[in-house]
Amino acid sequence: MAEQVCHKADILAIHDAMDVLNGKWKISILSSMCYYERRRFSDLSNDMVGISNKQLSKELKELEQNKLIKRTVLATQPVTVQYSLTDYGWTLQGIIHDLAKWGSSHRRVIMG
Amino acid sequence: MAEQVCHKADILAIHDAMDVLNGKWKISILSSMCYYERRRFSDLSNDMVGISNKQLSKELKELEQNKLIKRTVLATQPVTVQYSLTDYGWTLQGIIHDLAKWGSSHRRVIMG
Repeated sequence: MAEQVCHKADILAIHDAMDVLNGKWKISILSSMCYYERRRFSDLSNDMVGISNKQLSKELKELEQNKLIKRTVLATQPVTVQYSLTDYGWTLQGIIHDLAKWGSSHRRVIMG
Repeated sequence: MAEQVCHKADILAIHDAMDVLNGKWKISILSSMCYYERRRFSDLSNDMVGISNKQLSKELKELEQNKLIKRTVLATQPVTVQYSLTDYGWTLQGIIHDLAKWGSSHRRVIMG
């Protein structure tokens, strides 16, 4: 029974993580900022094949609300908006790299 | 430009991974089998707070189609159906543990 309680907490923790990272886009978006450090909206839109601008805006807003990314407005003409990971967002770096590795081996598995 | 091509592949790989693992339930379901090894439908239903039976069936079917879990029918009276990770599903173990760690620290961040 003690073992059961212990695993419940682990499963709950994963549920909490996936509550923030859910959907097929969020981790991809975070990964783009992880690989390139600073990213404009148009860069992200190019990185995510198949995402609409509306969906991308929504995902960025949610990631910002969860303090995983920050939005910086540069005083250029016209203004430039850059997105980057917060220190907190960087705590996902290891998971992002592992998922990229797993995803690329998964591609090989499903391709043949 | 070479750098751009390289990261595109990483981001695509993450997208491929999240295509299989998307939704807030799949990784939690996999984690339950990872922690307990064998799990009945009713066990999983207890582990996932808030999931409906219909949703759980759907998620299990998709995970089975993607060869991450296997379904074993035992010849008991009445029959027992057990779910467990395939060897391929076990390749996600490291990511599952890291997500549990991240999720439990995330809970502390949002709670305080």
